[in-house]
Amino acid sequence: MSLEILNSFQEVRKATLALCKPLEIEDYVVQTAEFMSPPRWHLGHTTWFFEMLLAEIDTSYVPYQESYLYFFNSYYERFGERIPRGNRGTRSRPTVKETLAYRNAIDERMENALSKAGNAHQKDSCFLARVVMGLEHEMQHQELLVYDIKHLLCDLYDAGIQTFPKIPTSRNSGYIDIPGGLFLLGTDPSASFAWDNEKPAHRVYVEDFKIDRQLVTISDYLEFMNDEGYQKPLLWLQEGWKKVQHENWDSPLYWEQKENAWFVRDFRGHLALNEVLDEPVMHVSYFEANAYAKWKGKRLLTESEWERAATLTPSGEGKFLFPWGNTQPTSHHANLFEYGRWCLSPVGADPEGRNIVGVEQLIGNVWEWTSSDYAPYPGFHSEFDEYNDKFFINQKVLRGGSFATPAKHIRSTYRNFYYPHERWMACGFRCANIKAR
Amino acid sequence: MSLEILNSFQEVRKATLALCKPLEIEDYVVQTAEFMSPPRWHLGHTTWFFEMLLAEIDTSYVPYQESYLYFFNSYYERFGERIPRGNRGTRSRPTVKETLAYRNAIDERMENALSKAGNAHQKDSCFLARVVMGLEHEMQHQELLVYDIKHLLCDLYDAGIQTFPKIPTSRNSGYIDIPGGLFLLGTDPSASFAWDNEKPAHRVYVEDFKIDRQLVTISDYLEFMNDEGYQKPLLWLQEGWKKVQHENWDSPLYWEQKENAWFVRDFRGHLALNEVLDEPVMHVSYFEANAYAKWKGKRLLTESEWERAATLTPSGEGKFLFPWGNTQPTSHHANLFEYGRWCLSPVGADPEGRNIVGVEQLIGNVWEWTSSDYAPYPGFHSEFDEYNDKFFINQKVLRGGSFATPAKHIRSTYRNFYYPHERWMACGFRCANIKAR
Amino acid sequence: MSLEILNSFQEVRKATLALCKPLEIEDYVVQTAEFMSPPRWHLGHTTWFFEMLLAEIDTSYVPYQESYLYFFNSYYERFGERIPRGNRGTRSRPTVKETLAYRNAIDERMENALSKAGNAHQKDSCFLARVVMGLEHEMQHQELLVYDIKHLLCDLYDAGIQTFPKIPTSRNSGYIDIPGGLFLLGTDPSASFAWDNEKPAHRVYVEDFKIDRQLVTISDYLEFMNDEGYQKPLLWLQEGWKKVQHENWDSPLYWEQKENAWFVRDFRGHLALNEVLDEPVMHVSYFEANAYAKWKGKRLLTESEWERAATLTPSGEGKFLFPWGNTQPTSHHANLFEYGRWCLSPVGADPEGRNIVGVEQLIGNVWEWTSSDYAPYPGFHSEFDEYNDKFFINQKVLRGGSFATPAKHIRSTYRNFYYPHERWMACGFRCANIKAR
Amino acid sequence: MSLEILNSFQEVRKATLALCKPLEIEDYVVQTAEFMSPPRWHLGHTTWFFEMLLAEIDTSYVPYQESYLYFFNSYYERFGERIPRGNRGTRSRPTVKETLAYRNAIDERMENALSKAGNAHQKDSCFLARVVMGLEHEMQHQELLVYDIKHLLCDLYDAGIQTFPKIPTSRNSGYIDIPGGLFLLGTDPSASFAWDNEKPAHRVYVEDFKIDRQLVTISDYLEFMNDEGYQKPLLWLQEGWKKVQHENWDSPLYWEQKENAWFVRDFRGHLALNEVLDEPVMHVSYFEANAYAKWKGKRLLTESEWERAATLTPSGEGKFLFPWGNTQPTSHHANLFEYGRWCLSPVGADPEGRNIVGVEQLIGNVWEWTSSDYAPYPGFHSEFDEYNDKFFINQKVLRGGSFATPAKHIRSTYRNFYYPHERWMACGFRCANIKAR
Repeated sequence: MSLEILNSFQEVRKATLALCKPLEIEDYVVQTAEFMSPPRWHLGHTTWFFEMLLAEIDTSYVPYQESYLYFFNSYYERFGERIPRGNRGTRSRPTVKETLAYRNAIDERMENALSKAGNAHQKDSCFLARVVMGLEHEMQHQELLVYDIKHLLCDLYDAGIQTFPKIPTSRNSGYIDIPGGLFLLGTDPSASFAWDNEKPAHRVYVEDFKIDRQLVTISDYLEFMNDEGYQKPLLWLQEGWKKVQHENWDSPLYWEQKENAWFVRDFRGHLALNEVLDEPVMHVSYFEANAYAKWKGKRLLTESEWERAATLTPSGEGKFLFPWGNTQPTSHHANLFEYGRWCLSPVGADPEGRNIVGVEQLIGNVWEWTSSDYAPYPGFHSEFDEYNDKFFINQKVLRGGSFATPAKHIRSTYRNFYYPHERWMACGFRCANIKAR
Repeated sequence: MSLEILNSFQEVRKATLALCKPLEIEDYVVQTAEFMSPPRWHLGHTTWFFEMLLAEIDTSYVPYQESYLYFFNSYYERFGERIPRGNRGTRSRPTVKETLAYRNAIDERMENALSKAGNAHQKDSCFLARVVMGLEHEMQHQELLVYDIKHLLCDLYDAGIQTFPKIPTSRNSGYIDIPGGLFLLGTDPSASFAWDNEKPAHRVYVEDFKIDRQLVTISDYLEFMNDEGYQKPLLWLQEGWKKVQHENWDSPLYWEQKENAWFVRDFRGHLALNEVLDEPVMHVSYFEANAYAKWKGKRLLTESEWERAATLTPSGEGKFLFPWGNTQPTSHHANLFEYGRWCLSPVGADPEGRNIVGVEQLIGNVWEWTSSDYAPYPGFHSEFDEYNDKFFINQKVLRGGSFATPAKHIRSTYRNFYYPHERWMACGFRCANIKAR
Repeated sequence: MSLEILNSFQEVRKATLALCKPLEIEDYVVQTAEFMSPPRWHLGHTTWFFEMLLAEIDTSYVPYQESYLYFFNSYYERFGERIPRGNRGTRSRPTVKETLAYRNAIDERMENALSKAGNAHQKDSCFLARVVMGLEHEMQHQELLVYDIKHLLCDLYDAGIQTFPKIPTSRNSGYIDIPGGLFLLGTDPSASFAWDNEKPAHRVYVEDFKIDRQLVTISDYLEFMNDEGYQKPLLWLQEGWKKVQHENWDSPLYWEQKENAWFVRDFRGHLALNEVLDEPVMHVSYFEANAYAKWKGKRLLTESEWERAATLTPSGEGKFLFPWGNTQPTSHHANLFEYGRWCLSPVGADPEGRNIVGVEQLIGNVWEWTSSDYAPYPGFHSEFDEYNDKFFINQKVLRGGSFATPAKHIRSTYRNFYYPHERWMACGFRCANIKAR
Repeated sequence: MSLEILNSFQEVRKATLALCKPLEIEDYVVQTAEFMSPPRWHLGHTTWFFEMLLAEIDTSYVPYQESYLYFFNSYYERFGERIPRGNRGTRSRPTVKETLAYRNAIDERMENALSKAGNAHQKDSCFLARVVMGLEHEMQHQELLVYDIKHLLCDLYDAGIQTFPKIPTSRNSGYIDIPGGLFLLGTDPSASFAWDNEKPAHRVYVEDFKIDRQLVTISDYLEFMNDEGYQKPLLWLQEGWKKVQHENWDSPLYWEQKENAWFVRDFRGHLALNEVLDEPVMHVSYFEANAYAKWKGKRLLTESEWERAATLTPSGEGKFLFPWGNTQPTSHHANLFEYGRWCLSPVGADPEGRNIVGVEQLIGNVWEWTSSDYAPYPGFHSEFDEYNDKFFINQKVLRGGSFATPAKHIRSTYRNFYYPHERWMACGFRCANIKAR
């Protein structure tokens, strides 16, 4: 067990660095927006996280460098003062080289600790559980790195329209009928890991409903825009309409109009939207998803409905941890930058990308906004203070993971959460019919 | 039917004016804070609302005064431009006299329209339904008037500690076991009126749970404060902790400390907290309620649980619209100012203030924060655009009404909603046990 | 002497009230903008000022009402805490009636003190000097009242274009040559009163220069606007250009465009600019004045130049305290509201409105922006802390007084000061040639 | 002439790079505060400036890289859109390497143009004058680079108190009497270069005055602090007091208190103030300088007085361009970083650091705040739009240059300007007696 974790540790730590391969030194330290963090900060923060675990098991632990505790803490009150979120790009030191040295030093200490830990003792077993959590934490930051690098470098993708592989997308439009009833929402005991916010599994009741087979596409979304969706206040939640007006929103993030044609900045280049009409729309906020649904005479799914539709088994008994069953993918995502493209072929699912009842694009495409408030499940118990619990307010649950989510990190019960105005991550949505009947 | 509505119309309109009786002319026009509205604005806005209904049934309707449409619109995009919320106190005109003249003129037009309307015709029946809604709208503003007048004049309540009647509060502490199961959440068909946000009634599942018999009291809350509740970040939601720090919160609104003793400004005077320890705490935000519950090892109720506990019948079948049954109180609240005190004797309930299963203080004391996001019920259909639907984001549901809620206006299925940081209204809370088992 | 002051006291105090005659109760308490103060506040503040003088001569003085000290203090740190500037309109109490009672009570105490004071004693003489200053202070607030009432009620002046008397304005365009040289800038010993910021008189050197005979007119200013003055960044000071962009300035304050014609809101009604083309432009900021001058190939005057041009005597020796000599006007301005129009006939000057060398409109039309920083004269000594001295930064000097300045209050050496972005007061400007030679 | 300029060009360009020698790549791109610019930006901006000159003489000029025009423009409206000031640190590209390549390419183009330019033709002579201006512009940015690098790296200077050479400072306290009179303020015709804001020389009159022999020292300033200077509102200009309160100022920038002792972060290390008591205080705003002077019963100098005192000749006729005469220093400053210390030995002056009348520390120590508004001299004519003219508002003139000002760049008539709240540059001050008499 401890050896297996050691292997995972090395694999995950290496994967983080691999994501940074295309970066110049300058790219590591700059913060392009309040919501973005410099890549060097991610490298340091994920390392700091493990250092905190080391300090937990060794009361005489001496920090690698006192000042890093301030700079690499994200938002943990209990670990003391930290640099304000928006100031992460105001410091040039530690340099990238120094940060990598820090990383290596903590890796060594961790490998040392892991090689000594058995899991016979309570304390060791607790430490190993923390390390597993630390790896999941680092995989979350791998995903954030992808988004942050996108924001950092997106201005560069303007050297003209590149050729890029056409991604085959089945156009089985329409919906799937999902039977309602009482079912168990939340983590499945067979999962090797789950966050505390997925626990405990508990009974909820949902009515029958109809779920769209596919995610809302760029083509669908352009219809909304062409019908002046961004100009009609009655389609919007009040706070959403304020955003539209104050930020002059007239399209998703990364879109821009030139001579009456729409383009999008993307890892693949500066793309004409016409070339990617059947891909899922992304970089839309909850406000935009909600306005679209209202305009379409539909609604967003609740997270219960989403999980219900994603986890149905052939017998109707139990639930699937992954849409295609309970086998976790073994490999990580391909390095996005090595292959120069993103992965729209769904991680998991059957060869056609469908789950057992025919719903498509459920896992590993774009995160799907649900209408559900991010709140604790009944009986929730925090397993790591401040990790999930202090965010149980004003955020919406997203489900399904994106192309940037490591394959080992995602599952059907996974609950992500963002504020309704956020749209810098790979977020899209799917609709349901208002009334199932 | 139409005559009955006419009577209600006259009664409600008169009650609004009665609330303003103690005011000086100057009090009508000043805005003391962004969240507060000048009393003269409420008088005008509730009148404007009826004027909009008149315009709906008469396409040739000529507004009483064009400029009032701008000044007295609250937040309705479809009725055109309006004065920004925070600027309602920047205008001295129309004067109070002019506003009352406006009020009288529209009353006359309304009475005229009502006396002509039967309900045989579709159009008339639709108009009558709107008028009923307009009256419920005005009763909401009566409640807001009470809070706004409190804020406006609270600095005056410092002429020394007045004597005031002791309010008997039973101290049946402890909890009540509520059986879980599938039940129907939402409006009861027997209700004469319900908002669209209470509809449709639909099945939800709740687990067994334990609900506190009483609201959290001032005495309870002082324990939290004495244990440095406002100084411990780990008790708070992240956004709540920001509020605590940026606004220097160290107690509920209207509380102040003098020479180590706590006082509260209130309609009854400037009270020493020691004298009112067993009254429900109020003017606390959701953030404070949540922090208290976490400190206490408890949690807030969901709105399903609250409604479940409030509407149980002796047989366990069906539900009660009011905690004590289905009979609506016939009279309005006593005028708060005539009697110089607020009404803590519960409106409804049995003579001891309990409902059928023994839960106390459910209706007409203070609004109770629930942990539920304010979201549309499944199958929601808007009955009056922008009234409720555009607020389905980032707000929490409150239940039960307060001493300032007109008795005719409140019921067990009523859903009020505020942002988690708001605390200027009469809001308190009640806890449940984390795990019922 | 003391009797004379008593008479002045009564006259000035009455004149303040006279300005408020047209107001409704509601008008007294509302604050329409950060820069504006409610009329009731002016009534109270000028009274508070005298109360502070009473407290200065009587150490056992008991304040009329403790809470007024907080509400009616403007910006004096040494008199303790005070209500923030922008919150003067957030309080309905004291009522107008209570404020007038306060006024009467302090008047009585003052009259009592004045009747007892001789000027034999140092202490009495000091008190009398203070009272004179208090009266000048109150006259400043009379002027502010005029501007504040204009802002408060300007929305009402839209009942259509009223007829109004044409104001005769000589169109002696062109300039006057003013001889340079060393001269004495600052207060003249013959003045009965002067502020500390006008002292001490001291030698300055100015070169020969050419001063425009008249103020820049509305007609002149329209040319600048028609030549896209508000659209050309290179005409503007950097901070001015920011204002233009952030506040969307495209004309002076109170101007508005309807169907390609410009109108201005004014005490005389809602006027078409075409009707008043030869009146001085006003309600322009320093930024606008400066941009106009740059566009015109001219410049603004320094305050030394302005005073030089205004005070030249026939012999070239000494200086005039008033443009027409050294005789102070004896009467106050006509009540602006009684006569329903403003006073463009210059206060003082010869029958044609000229001074000794032919410069027109120097006193009592609109305040003239000068290019001079508001700074202490060499050898400045503060006579009343915080009155003038703490404002010696980032403000520009204005000269000449406006139609709203009480005639007894203005003179050639008077230095007014405002921030360069301000334009709510009656401020215009006059140009000089860049190079006199 | 053109060859001489070519030599200067190469020397100045090289000196800029030399200042960056101690930097890591990361240091070049980070912006630590709104007022600071990343070093890489300075390298690019000074290059862009020369590129604009190239474009001026060659209408077919093709920009090196279109996107650099946006990123490296500072505030010139006439050169089109530019990145907002506060966003200069939000971009990682162009990289340092790319920026240096840009620099080299423009250097080559410039050298080419310079080698072709004679000064026979009007156009060539105009170009050469522009190049000289471009070099002065680059020297300004050399100074800014020193301040920006200080801010960027100051957190690093905490590795303990380093030993550092004691700087000998004569303690000839007291003042010098300066005779007043009419004299010529502004540029001297013998200067090889002067900014338009130093022109035209013109007559001004100053009274006799007494000037402090030395700059205010750290020791002097500590007295002010120990007497609670930062706690007494009456010492401060109103806007200064707001700053003190909102920014919690209690000492100059870079000072910090540990266990009741004061330290300062500086290029020389983290210094105990006790060790440097006789050095001039710096990093104080105008507000602080003014408050100190008021506390001391003195005042700041006007810029006329400063120039008068700095330029007096032995005969009293004419004026000195440098305090010690009219010979410009030939060498640039030593590289601050090579020598690890700043240069307090005055640039110029006699061996004891005095000028002809005995005033010390006039040139090359710290910039001296004067009480004079930054305004155009009478007859001002802009020589390069937007360079100086659009800043003629709300700023104060500073005189004398600092240790970071290139020696070739400074002279007695030089006018620097900053907002009164700024204190990130090397700014100190000197006092004069209020009344000379």
